[in-house]
Amino acid sequence: MLRGRQVRRMRPTGIYNPTSTVAGNQHWGHATSRDLYHWENQQIAIFPSGPTEYIYSGSAVVDVNNTSGFFPNQTNGVVAIYTLAIYTTQAGEQTQEIAYSRDGGYTFTKYAGNPVISINSTQFRDPKVIWHAETQKWVMVVAYAAEFVIGIYTSPNLREWTHASNFSHHGLLGLQYECPNMVQMPMEGSDTPMYLLWISINPGAPLGGSITQYFPGTFNGTHFEAVDQVARIGDFGKDNYAAQFFYGIPGTEPQVSIAWASNWQYCQLVPTGPQEGWRSSMSLPRYNYLTNVSRIGYDLVSAPYNITGQASRELAFNSSLGNSSILLDYSTVASGALYFEANVTHLTAATLAGSVNVTFTSSQSGESVRAGTYVGGDTFLNRQYTRGFDNPFFTDKFSATGVFNETTGVWSLSGVIDRSIVEIFVNGGEQSATATFFPTAPLDIMALSATGISPNATVSVAVWALNSAWAGNENVNGTVVGNVTTGSATGNYSAAAVRRGALLFEGRMAGL
Amino acid sequence: MLRGRQVRRMRPTGIYNPTSTVAGNQHWGHATSRDLYHWENQQIAIFPSGPTEYIYSGSAVVDVNNTSGFFPNQTNGVVAIYTLAIYTTQAGEQTQEIAYSRDGGYTFTKYAGNPVISINSTQFRDPKVIWHAETQKWVMVVAYAAEFVIGIYTSPNLREWTHASNFSHHGLLGLQYECPNMVQMPMEGSDTPMYLLWISINPGAPLGGSITQYFPGTFNGTHFEAVDQVARIGDFGKDNYAAQFFYGIPGTEPQVSIAWASNWQYCQLVPTGPQEGWRSSMSLPRYNYLTNVSRIGYDLVSAPYNITGQASRELAFNSSLGNSSILLDYSTVASGALYFEANVTHLTAATLAGSVNVTFTSSQSGESVRAGTYVGGDTFLNRQYTRGFDNPFFTDKFSATGVFNETTGVWSLSGVIDRSIVEIFVNGGEQSATATFFPTAPLDIMALSATGISPNATVSVAVWALNSAWAGNENVNGTVVGNVTTGSATGNYSAAAVRRGALLFEGRMAGL
Repeated sequence: MLRGRQVRRMRPTGIYNPTSTVAGNQHWGHATSRDLYHWENQQIAIFPSGPTEYIYSGSAVVDVNNTSGFFPNQTNGVVAIYTLAIYTTQAGEQTQEIAYSRDGGYTFTKYAGNPVISINSTQFRDPKVIWHAETQKWVMVVAYAAEFVIGIYTSPNLREWTHASNFSHHGLLGLQYECPNMVQMPMEGSDTPMYLLWISINPGAPLGGSITQYFPGTFNGTHFEAVDQVARIGDFGKDNYAAQFFYGIPGTEPQVSIAWASNWQYCQLVPTGPQEGWRSSMSLPRYNYLTNVSRIGYDLVSAPYNITGQASRELAFNSSLGNSSILLDYSTVASGALYFEANVTHLTAATLAGSVNVTFTSSQSGESVRAGTYVGGDTFLNRQYTRGFDNPFFTDKFSATGVFNETTGVWSLSGVIDRSIVEIFVNGGEQSATATFFPTAPLDIMALSATGISPNATVSVAVWALNSAWAGNENVNGTVVGNVTTGSATGNYSAAAVRRGALLFEGRMAGL
Repeated sequence: MLRGRQVRRMRPTGIYNPTSTVAGNQHWGHATSRDLYHWENQQIAIFPSGPTEYIYSGSAVVDVNNTSGFFPNQTNGVVAIYTLAIYTTQAGEQTQEIAYSRDGGYTFTKYAGNPVISINSTQFRDPKVIWHAETQKWVMVVAYAAEFVIGIYTSPNLREWTHASNFSHHGLLGLQYECPNMVQMPMEGSDTPMYLLWISINPGAPLGGSITQYFPGTFNGTHFEAVDQVARIGDFGKDNYAAQFFYGIPGTEPQVSIAWASNWQYCQLVPTGPQEGWRSSMSLPRYNYLTNVSRIGYDLVSAPYNITGQASRELAFNSSLGNSSILLDYSTVASGALYFEANVTHLTAATLAGSVNVTFTSSQSGESVRAGTYVGGDTFLNRQYTRGFDNPFFTDKFSATGVFNETTGVWSLSGVIDRSIVEIFVNGGEQSATATFFPTAPLDIMALSATGISPNATVSVAVWALNSAWAGNENVNGTVVGNVTTGSATGNYSAAAVRRGALLFEGRMAGL
C-alpha cells in the first residue's frame, strides 16, 4: 500500500444547521484538527445573509500566490467557494459565491462582487475548486444537478470564471448529480497521478437514496476524460455520501476524504435527535488512491486514515488463530470504539476457502451487527439484528465481491465499530462499506471467528480499543457543545451539541 | 402505453438440470405456451454429449429463408445457438455451437461442424442471435465474461461467424458480464425502434450478487453505440437476473422477456429444494419498450405481459378509495396468486403527497411482505418480516425513486404476489422490482391503504385472483412432473418436478 504523509492540520468547514438536528437553515460550520480524529469547534465560518438564504456545499483553497488580489503580502489567504441557495415560498436560484479569510481561515468576508457564477438555475450547486499548475488556473467542478451534468469552469483569480466543458450522463444517474469533486489521485505502481472525478447522486441509488460513484481519467486543464464508460461505486454500504477531498495534498500522495455517514432516505428520521442534540455523523477520515485490482482493473482504495495512531490498547491478538475464535467484552472501553483486523495470509488460488466473521452483540438486548468475508469472494455487512429503528428504507444487508490477488496471497477484513456506526474494509480498502445502526442497548461483546480456512494459510487477528475522539471537549455533563456563535446576521443561535470526533457536521463537508 | 400484439405461441428452452434442484449437469429444458402463463413441458431439447459437457445459455431463431442450408423446402426451421462448456477437473473451454430442428423445435440435431466459434477461452458464453434485415445477416452478441466485453459477430448462414466489433467496459462491471441480449426495442412516441443492449453481471452487483443493466442505442449491422455512458438497471429488487428476450417480435412492437427470479448469492440455498423437487422460478413474462421519463430520460418499461387475461375473479374494487383501506382474506384463492393495482389520478405537481401501501400477511404466523409508494417519490419493497430463510446475502429492503409526469397526472403501484415471489411495478413499469421470499406459513391476508393523498386526487384500487398456471398439469399428488426424457447420451434422468406456470427452468432461459 501507498503510505500518506502525516497531515499537519486539517480544517474542514461544512454544511451545518446550528438550530436543529435536521437539515435546514444551512450555515458553514467549522472545526480544526491535527490528526483528523480530534476536532476543535470553531466559530461558524459562513452565515447566510438573511432568512431566505442557505449556504450550501462547496470547498476552500489556499491562494498562496494571491491570484485573487484579496491577500496582499500574504501567502496563507483562504478562499471559500460555496453555493448560495435562495428559498422563499419555493426554491429559488442557486449561484456560486466566494468568501475570503485573511486570518488563516477563522473568519470570512463575503466577496462584494458575488455571485461569481450565476446561470439563472435552481439546480446548480456544490463547487469544488483545485489549482491546475500546468495551466496556472483554478478549476471548478460544479453540478447542474437535475441535468446530470458536471460543469467544469476555470479562473485565473477565483473571481472570474469561464465555462470550459461539461461531463454529462455518465454512470448511475439517480435523480440528480450532487457534490462533484475532481482531484489528482495517485495510481499505485505509477509515478504519475491520474485524475478522479467523483459524483454523488441522490435519490435513486441502486440501494435506494444516496450513493457516490467515481471515474478515473485524465484532465488537460479544460476537459475531463474518463478512462472508460464504467460506473464505479465508492462504498457498498448505504451510509456514505458526498465525500469531500481535502485540498492541498500533492497528487502523488494518497488523498484524504471524509464522507457524510447517512442516507437522505432516513437521515432526518434516525433515532438520535432532539434529546442528544446531534443526529448524523461523518465517516472515518480515509486515505484514497487508485490501484489496479486483479482482473477488475481500476479501483479506488479507501482505508482509515492512520487509524492505528488512535489505538489506546490492544484487546486481543493472535498471530495464528487457525479455525478458531476470540470473544471479548468491551464494555469497559470508554470510547465504545474498536478497530479490528483479520488477515488471512499464505493463500494460493488453490487454498481459497472458508470465511472470517465478526459479530458485535449487546449483552443486554441480544441485538447484533455482523460482518464477514468469504476468502476470495463475497463480503457482507448486516445490521438486521438491531431494533432501534424500523423504516422501509433502512436496508439491512450489504455485500460486495472482491478478487484474490495471487501476488500477495492475502485476504483481509478490517473495520471500526463506534457505538452506532460501523465501517469495514476488505483487502486494505479495495472494498469498503459504511453503515449506521441503532440498537436499543449498547453493543459490548465482540466475537471474531475463522472457519473453513485452509490449514496451509495463516489467520492473524488483532483488536484494539480506540481513543475517544471527543472526550477532551466534553463539559461536566458529558456533552460537547457545538459551534457556538456570539451573533449573526439572522440572530442568535442556540448551541447544537455534537458528538463523535471528526463528525462535527450535520450535513456535508467541504475540505480545506 | 404501447400495446403489444397477442403472442400466438412461445417456445422457451432454457438451462435445466434434470437430476437436481441446484445448478449443474446443464441441459436445455423445453416448454411451450400459448399465453406465456400456462406451459406444457416438452422433451429436453439439447443434451450434453458426455459427462464433461454442460449446455449453457443461448438463444434460438427461425431460419425462414433457409440461410443455414439445414432446411430445404422448409420455412419453419429452428436453429438453437448455445455455449458448450467443458468441465473436467477444472473449467475447460467454452465454445459456441448450433443445433437445428426440422420439426418446429421439438427435437434438435447438433451441427456436425461444431463449434461454430472457438477462441480458446474458458470465459466465452451466452450467445444471443437476431436477424438484421438491413444487412441480411445474423448478428450474435456473446460475452467475453471475465474481460467485460460483449463481442458482436455476424453470419450469413448461422454456421460461419465473423467478429465485427466489441462493446466493452460500460456500466457496472461486477466480476463478469453474462447473458447479453441485443434486440430492437420500440421507443414510445417514435415510429422508429431503437436497439437495446442488455448485459447481466454476476457477482458484484450494487445490491450484491447478480443484476441486469441495459444500454439504449443504435446498431448499424456491425457496431452498437450507446446513447450515453449511463448505467441503467433493469429491476430494483434482487431476484431478476439474465432476462432473455423472445425472438421474432417486430421491433416496432413491445418486446417480451422472462427473467430468472433469483440471485446467485443464495439461489442454491433457499428453502424450496429436494422435498419439493423445484427451487427457483422465472419472473412474470414482461412487455418491454423504451420511453422517455420526465427529466430522467431513457427508461425501459417492464410490465406484466397481458396479466389481466389471467384474472379469475375480482376480489376488491373501489374507484374512489380516498384515504382509506381495504382488507381481504385470500386463503380461498386456489392459485395463491393475486394481481393488484392502485392508481392515484388527477394529481398535479402541487398535490403530490401521501402514500399507498400494500401488506400481505400470514394469518398463521404474522409474517408479512410489504410494498409502498410515496406519491411522486420513493417506492419500497420489504421482505424483512418473513422468517423462513436467514442468510447474510438475502437483502430485505429494496427501493427506487420515480418522477411524476405532469402530463398524465397519474402515480400508480401494481403488482403480482404468487406464494413465494412478488413483483411490483411503478407507473405501469417505469420501475419494477422482483423479490422472492420464504415465510414459514402461507401469506393469505392482503391490506391495501392510501394515506395522506390530496383530496383533489382520486385513488382507485382493484385486486384480482389469478388463475393457477400449473393446476392443469398436475398429477393426482398435486405435482407437476418436469422434463421427462426416455433416454440420453449420459443415461436416464429422474424427473424433476416443477411448479409455477412459466417458471419451468432451474436456471436461465433462452427465448424462441
